[in-house]
Amino acid sequence: MKVGILGGGQLARMIALAGYPLGLKFIVLDPDPNAGAAGLSEHLHGAYDDPALLAELAEKADVVTYEFENVPAHVAEFLSSHTTVYPPANALAVSQDRLLEKNFFKELGIGTAPYAQVDSLADLKNAMTTMGYPAILKSRRMGYDGKGQVVLMSAGDLAAAWEAMQGAAAIVEGFVPFRREVSIIAARRPSGDIVFYPLSENRHSGGILRVASACADDAEQGMAEDYVRRLLEKLDYVGVIALELFDVGGQLLANEFAPRVHNSGHWTIEGSETSQFENHLRAILDLPLGSTQTRGFAAMVNFIGGLPQTEEILKLDHAHLHLYDKAPRKGRKVAHATIRSEDLEQFEQTREKLTNLAKQTDDS
Amino acid sequence: MKVGILGGGQLARMIALAGYPLGLKFIVLDPDPNAGAAGLSEHLHGAYDDPALLAELAEKADVVTYEFENVPAHVAEFLSSHTTVYPPANALAVSQDRLLEKNFFKELGIGTAPYAQVDSLADLKNAMTTMGYPAILKSRRMGYDGKGQVVLMSAGDLAAAWEAMQGAAAIVEGFVPFRREVSIIAARRPSGDIVFYPLSENRHSGGILRVASACADDAEQGMAEDYVRRLLEKLDYVGVIALELFDVGGQLLANEFAPRVHNSGHWTIEGSETSQFENHLRAILDLPLGSTQTRGFAAMVNFIGGLPQTEEILKLDHAHLHLYDKAPRKGRKVAHATIRSEDLEQFEQTREKLTNLAKQTDDS
Repeated sequence: MKVGILGGGQLARMIALAGYPLGLKFIVLDPDPNAGAAGLSEHLHGAYDDPALLAELAEKADVVTYEFENVPAHVAEFLSSHTTVYPPANALAVSQDRLLEKNFFKELGIGTAPYAQVDSLADLKNAMTTMGYPAILKSRRMGYDGKGQVVLMSAGDLAAAWEAMQGAAAIVEGFVPFRREVSIIAARRPSGDIVFYPLSENRHSGGILRVASACADDAEQGMAEDYVRRLLEKLDYVGVIALELFDVGGQLLANEFAPRVHNSGHWTIEGSETSQFENHLRAILDLPLGSTQTRGFAAMVNFIGGLPQTEEILKLDHAHLHLYDKAPRKGRKVAHATIRSEDLEQFEQTREKLTNLAKQTDDS
Repeated sequence: MKVGILGGGQLARMIALAGYPLGLKFIVLDPDPNAGAAGLSEHLHGAYDDPALLAELAEKADVVTYEFENVPAHVAEFLSSHTTVYPPANALAVSQDRLLEKNFFKELGIGTAPYAQVDSLADLKNAMTTMGYPAILKSRRMGYDGKGQVVLMSAGDLAAAWEAMQGAAAIVEGFVPFRREVSIIAARRPSGDIVFYPLSENRHSGGILRVASACADDAEQGMAEDYVRRLLEKLDYVGVIALELFDVGGQLLANEFAPRVHNSGHWTIEGSETSQFENHLRAILDLPLGSTQTRGFAAMVNFIGGLPQTEEILKLDHAHLHLYDKAPRKGRKVAHATIRSEDLEQFEQTREKLTNLAKQTDDS
């Protein structure tokens, strides 16, 4: 059984590493000759929308999945008409557009921060007459890791902010005074079976995830599961999904979802009985989903822009190193480490050591 | 950093899977075009003693290791003279010859079953005047999984048994009334640091390992560690080693050692903080060795000759499937599953289910 992946970065790499023990083979399409998954799979080297390569991918793969959500609609359509593609194209379409996504949450009865559609400076000014400051103007499409976003502190910022959008369709969102940012990762197979991972509490900086920690027996687990179940069922979703949420005084508000394996779930590699990567494969191959049981304390620390001496990580007893085989570059995720321990004090110490190591080389 | 491996079977495959997260690359030499590690590494396709391929392996790899011990001495010498080879050639030489191996144990003060050198039928008859029946005649070299061995039940068996050796240098060993068969896996890095895994209790049948289970807090752990430490230090060993032992009423007798990762350590993949495969790599690259802490109960069940429906394995909550990408063939190890659980009853039930599944297709 061969799995095709659009994108050959670290997510594809970790999917492949999880899939070899299941007897799977992989083929990735990625324009980068040094893509991190390339040594672990057959590699189609070229553009994501190259018709000949897409045809070859569809021909060779029993099922195709992807490691990023900004797959052009015509590419998803082409692949879907030639082979099985999971997660489904409608999930892509919704997640690619912040406005559709927010409207979709609303339709499902899932709370969000206040938001409004912005197609002109007039729209923006109008929205800000009712929405409080600070707020944030975001392009509707193609934003990630904090790109394509402008913070609005007062009415004086509006014209420049709209200018920065360069005419792109946008959305303005109110800030919410959240207590913490969390995410929930779940997997659904075609039969409708769903498994949920424990909530992850996520620490961002500069719009980039830095540290994600599993939340054992969290009070908001049930609410998060209810939300993500609504998404999965409405979308007739297959695969792993990640839903990012703000915890506002015990009420969860949806921020966005990613129709793929997610950085905030990397601690599941060692932390959970079955990793998000293995469960994504099980889901898209319609195999029994694996247990998401998470023992003790688990977390993940990202290494961004560079790496400390790897020996400093390897000598920490409960840390596990995951390198992506990517050349260091400003703001680029090049590795992560997970920590898992039964002992809270030991866990927190190791997480702090890793966080400090990550800061040494983080240039973002 | 590129690691060369002589042999591209399941052990090389699992070494590579453990090594990618550490940022390593792999090159294997294996005559089988469908070698299980081939999709995961650069593959030199040809004989193990092909001079041009060995030269290429030595040229491309920063360090070379192997997944079997029957590496011809001239191959080990050639590689050692061109690159770093771990474990060291002297460990290979001793482990390849049952007589040298037994003498080596004796020299180190490690007990063994009674044994005698047999170069002729006269030698065999002479040895059996003092050694009790049953006993076992084994070729000194190239035996594995019960091959090249004849059981002796009485003096009437000796002539035919010696005939079966076809003139090969042999050794006769007395049976010992062991309570159980165990093994200990350890890793040593060039600096001399050593880590030990918990003992594994191993159930064989027909000379082939079927089930291996981790022994938590075993009374014989200390004795086993003492024995394997003597081996490691005397050999100035680098890498993972496995020492197989008979437990005879609380006294451990050495059976044999393998200078490589070992089937009885496969439960370390999910069962231990750091797997034997990762620690082998850390050792040969002179990196800090990882914790061998093993939580709860862990075991491994081999699938030999064939596989049940893999869904039957995937639906067991605490089981983890490891396929080797090998075509089924009589007596061939094609996969294993590990089990890890905190709950003894659940653990034992799952191990039994896996053992029964393995029996369905086991043709050996």
